[in-house]
Amino acid sequence: MKKLINGVDQIVSEMVEGLVAAHPDKLRAIENTNVIVRADAPVQGKVALISGGGSGHEPAHAGYVGEGLLDAAVSGEVFTSPTPDQVLEAIKAVDSGAGVLLIVKNYSGDVMNFDMAADLAEAEDITVKQVVIRDDVAISNPDDRRGVAGTTLVHMIAGAAAAEGKSLDEVEAIAQGVADNVRSMGVSLAPCTVPASGKPGFTLEENEMEIGTGIHGEQGVERRELMQADAVTEELVQHVLDDMHLNDGSEVALMINGQGATPLMELYIVARKAIQLLKDRGIHVKKTFVGEYMTSLEMTGCSVTILNLDEERKRLLLSGRE
Amino acid sequence: MKKLINGVDQIVSEMVEGLVAAHPDKLRAIENTNVIVRADAPVQGKVALISGGGSGHEPAHAGYVGEGLLDAAVSGEVFTSPTPDQVLEAIKAVDSGAGVLLIVKNYSGDVMNFDMAADLAEAEDITVKQVVIRDDVAISNPDDRRGVAGTTLVHMIAGAAAAEGKSLDEVEAIAQGVADNVRSMGVSLAPCTVPASGKPGFTLEENEMEIGTGIHGEQGVERRELMQADAVTEELVQHVLDDMHLNDGSEVALMINGQGATPLMELYIVARKAIQLLKDRGIHVKKTFVGEYMTSLEMTGCSVTILNLDEERKRLLLSGRE
Repeated sequence: MKKLINGVDQIVSEMVEGLVAAHPDKLRAIENTNVIVRADAPVQGKVALISGGGSGHEPAHAGYVGEGLLDAAVSGEVFTSPTPDQVLEAIKAVDSGAGVLLIVKNYSGDVMNFDMAADLAEAEDITVKQVVIRDDVAISNPDDRRGVAGTTLVHMIAGAAAAEGKSLDEVEAIAQGVADNVRSMGVSLAPCTVPASGKPGFTLEENEMEIGTGIHGEQGVERRELMQADAVTEELVQHVLDDMHLNDGSEVALMINGQGATPLMELYIVARKAIQLLKDRGIHVKKTFVGEYMTSLEMTGCSVTILNLDEERKRLLLSGRE
Repeated sequence: MKKLINGVDQIVSEMVEGLVAAHPDKLRAIENTNVIVRADAPVQGKVALISGGGSGHEPAHAGYVGEGLLDAAVSGEVFTSPTPDQVLEAIKAVDSGAGVLLIVKNYSGDVMNFDMAADLAEAEDITVKQVVIRDDVAISNPDDRRGVAGTTLVHMIAGAAAAEGKSLDEVEAIAQGVADNVRSMGVSLAPCTVPASGKPGFTLEENEMEIGTGIHGEQGVERRELMQADAVTEELVQHVLDDMHLNDGSEVALMINGQGATPLMELYIVARKAIQLLKDRGIHVKKTFVGEYMTSLEMTGCSVTILNLDEERKRLLLSGRE
């Protein structure tokens, strides 16, 4: 395992220290936790947004804390859910009385721990709502779908809505609207190594790729011979579109997300083909994101995310922060 | 070689297509070239900034084209200088009569081809100035130093100066001031593979790292046993500081640049230590950049860049685009 770390046990706390040291005007950490909050939190009168989960997906989620985005992010150990008490600390630090929305990726540990924290906060008279993200169409049963890169579009759009001063119910409805209309699918070319294990999470031969892998290297839909970028893109886009109800004239946002070790050059080659494919179907791409939004340590590969835009989502996304 | 590409010969042209397709409101390509220019170029009355070089360093340089940054970027094949005629096309596309500044990394091919293009442009009555960046202190002779991540700070600061309406001579002087005051040093943990060769550029054993590697995987200063992040950071920061004249109270910008495959998590661990080391010496870090600014395909490792700030550079950097 070759990593620029000091020790497995300090990784997350040192990352949090680094984030705050690098951006002290924008971020602060809550003492004795791995919770990062906006430097100016709580923001009076504004609904507060919190996300989090296991670390190893940076910039998600701590990199989304800031004006017009999240108010706090809770970082668990690598690929491990944060504890309820850390989530509760985050809730207490950012609530200004306008309520708190938790944006949770659909993993059992995250769902359970965020839910427990919400209950604890309600007991302290803080109003908390939750939106669970299940955008990964690699899993066929919608209820079981994992939250992946599409989660970051919820950060952006719900973040813009909260910044406009919308109420907790309104922000929740908008976030739920994004969650209901976003779909993703990924491909991996090479695995990542969780520091605590020291070994790659799976193995792929030199000519193999895995379609539909999760952001922790969970098993995908199919192992295949490595294909050219255009064919891979077609496969991912088709899987995503098959699960959406888009028409000629539909408006969407597109995200080509790098999983950690894939050069931006390759992501733009994928973006080029994805945009062509959508255009061929009469779908209008109003905004394209290409880069690393939700990574899996140094996994190689990418995911394609498509969000169906209504007028409100479009307005919030185009006016908001990235 | 596992890459999301269609064919070695189309990589750069398809990346350029992808960039323009993804950001059509901001970028356009000059037909039959790999030159990307601001969608609204030429900007009347503004000094135009151009950079470029071999591809494979994304987001450098095409990712820096935009308001307050570059007016054009010229992308050669992977790790290969662009031809003079492509640079000339860029110059002609962005000059509004206020003159053009070329920001060139110090590699013989780049220097020669940008210089030739400047001569051709002067023959067409376009005023062209050049600044050559040599920030890599891994090379001891300052004249021979390679241009690396510090180049992107020239884009930002000279870009902000040009956006303010400064003259070509003024923008050139500011860019030269950045070039004279910026130093970088990198470390590699794993090599990258140039698509045309299909094989890694060098090899490192599982417990080895190479200190002082260039952004094309050129040989470094020393091959060493892999150390912990703090020790690596200390080594890089010390190398850089040894070549600068900073005092207690000096103000600097710090960049922790990922070379392509290093997780952001690890870059923040490095940032944390670098900031501590500078603070211990009484040096004030006014701005910290952590992320991928000048990559080397999927090379693993990072570089540390420090820029000595005077009042003008500080003002332009803090007010400018990133």
